[in-house]
Amino acid sequence: MTLLTETIGQIAGADQTYRERARAHILNLTMPSWALGRLLDLAVDLAGMTRSLQPPVARKEIVLMAGDHGIVAEGVCPQGSEVTMQMMYNFINGGAGINVLAKVAKAHVSVVDLGVAADLSDAVAAGRILDRKVAPGTANFARGPAMTRSEAVQSVEAGIALALELSASVDVFGTGEMGIGNTSPSSAIVTVLAGETDPAPYVGRGAGLAVDKLAHKAVVIRRGIELNEPDRSDGIDVLSKVGGFEIGGIAGLILGAARCRKPVVVDGFISSAGALIAASLCPAAKDYMILAHGSAEPGHVKMAELLGKLPMLDLNLRLGEGTGAALAMPLLDAAAAVMTDMATFESAKVTVKGIK
Amino acid sequence: MTLLTETIGQIAGADQTYRERARAHILNLTMPSWALGRLLDLAVDLAGMTRSLQPPVARKEIVLMAGDHGIVAEGVCPQGSEVTMQMMYNFINGGAGINVLAKVAKAHVSVVDLGVAADLSDAVAAGRILDRKVAPGTANFARGPAMTRSEAVQSVEAGIALALELSASVDVFGTGEMGIGNTSPSSAIVTVLAGETDPAPYVGRGAGLAVDKLAHKAVVIRRGIELNEPDRSDGIDVLSKVGGFEIGGIAGLILGAARCRKPVVVDGFISSAGALIAASLCPAAKDYMILAHGSAEPGHVKMAELLGKLPMLDLNLRLGEGTGAALAMPLLDAAAAVMTDMATFESAKVTVKGIK
Repeated sequence: MTLLTETIGQIAGADQTYRERARAHILNLTMPSWALGRLLDLAVDLAGMTRSLQPPVARKEIVLMAGDHGIVAEGVCPQGSEVTMQMMYNFINGGAGINVLAKVAKAHVSVVDLGVAADLSDAVAAGRILDRKVAPGTANFARGPAMTRSEAVQSVEAGIALALELSASVDVFGTGEMGIGNTSPSSAIVTVLAGETDPAPYVGRGAGLAVDKLAHKAVVIRRGIELNEPDRSDGIDVLSKVGGFEIGGIAGLILGAARCRKPVVVDGFISSAGALIAASLCPAAKDYMILAHGSAEPGHVKMAELLGKLPMLDLNLRLGEGTGAALAMPLLDAAAAVMTDMATFESAKVTVKGIK
Repeated sequence: MTLLTETIGQIAGADQTYRERARAHILNLTMPSWALGRLLDLAVDLAGMTRSLQPPVARKEIVLMAGDHGIVAEGVCPQGSEVTMQMMYNFINGGAGINVLAKVAKAHVSVVDLGVAADLSDAVAAGRILDRKVAPGTANFARGPAMTRSEAVQSVEAGIALALELSASVDVFGTGEMGIGNTSPSSAIVTVLAGETDPAPYVGRGAGLAVDKLAHKAVVIRRGIELNEPDRSDGIDVLSKVGGFEIGGIAGLILGAARCRKPVVVDGFISSAGALIAASLCPAAKDYMILAHGSAEPGHVKMAELLGKLPMLDLNLRLGEGTGAALAMPLLDAAAAVMTDMATFESAKVTVKGIK
């Protein structure tokens, strides 16, 4: 049995008894009924995931998966793939957005090479980048499949293995990514998994594509879908047809987190593409996902709908790297603290009938 | 010259030069243009308020103002005023929502009696509640003015004085409140300051009023407005006619924060009523307000519109106490950290043309 099939077999959904117990506990806390709104929904979710009324959330780990994309040859993004490599050094030197925001959230960041089209061996040797490279970039999915089926499985299993390795010292996972060109496979994934054929409504400017090139980007993605005919009932097939390696890694990380019954804060558009692959491989894994924020990319609304999730934040973010996950993490601290530390009507001698 | 008029005279709006400098700095940071969206808007706001490209935000103080309301005699809320007092003890004993969430945000909470209809002298003597009581609860504004004009000024000046006293050791203020019945004056304030006569669209369930009693609540508030004829061009008149003392205190705290050029995170519906009073007394004070969240109370959308602000969070909160302000505070840490700690394209050797 492979790690992937074994992991899927071990994932159980959230515990309904703990969800009910959390709800009952919250209704006894000194506030009007459900007055902290979605923070309390999150608290119930955390209780159901962790099987605890005092959900542990202190130790946070953002796993930043990186990969390159052959689709950039089609002129779908203004940057070249060399920027992926340049940003990898920015991450390990602590100067990127994710470094700064993870520090505020007290989250550790692991930087993982799933498929960067550059030699990062110096940073790997120095222990600053984790080498899980499947290949140096995907093939151009407008001309053929992005990767082989076995490479797709390898990328997902790399993510699972990372989650399992890290889980002993992690309470909450966060997803992050870097990869010039990775909005294109993400748009393709949401189109295919929505059962649609036209990616245009789900195509956006990524890291700054000129508005007048959006139509071209949509045509390229549509051609890639028509050419490769991804099978929407098979998440590995979809991943292998359009990519990318980091998206597979994210899908695996989410499956691994679900296997360990730990919450995973899903960052924006590309991370949600990974979440869609994970959900298509194992629907029960959705119970462990927390959507950090609503991305500025137009396809993200459909992704959230397919995942059945409401994003926690709505700040018009479109950076990726895990930055939205980092920004959402304090809400997990807050939700857990409400469960753990708030007084009940009885303990605080507050009139129940009055305020409940 | 009174403290109020003196303070208003000393408030200058945000510094446009620092706003421009912040914008220019952010455009050099290693991310696609404005890719952190509203977090960057917030960073620019903080720079303009504090006249700094490294806005100080570490020392946070939530000032929780409490008062009671004569309007409860009209059956506009299910609770009795004794719950205000009970909650005051919950606050000083650390068991309320604001205690828990302020701790997560690393914010200190000051609990202030502006007009609680109960004897809190033991807690005042113990130094755990600040005594700024104007009177033990407002009068019923459905039958006459909630307070005298001089009491209104006294409540606002109490807030100003507190901000000035605290400012030496505070970087960021947050507003909070407690007061059974205080959604009614808040609904009245937004109605009057919007230049409207019918409060019904701005009347909500507060801490749990039955839906079938909402129409009655609106009738009572409308009667209070018609009877007292608050002068919408005079914030002190509006405050004195409908109340309450804690809303005046919040208005004053905001004016004091603006005077000290410090950001003030405005909590939900009642705090925004205080912000509206502050803005009507001194429009430039708006430059220092950050709306924490969009409240579940229906009138809050209009308040945000009148203040010209978009709330940072949207979590369906309706607790008050400053809980929403506490939840939003980590976003200020994040915005300031981006300004202070992120690498530039040049320092990180990332291709500018590529990613900008």
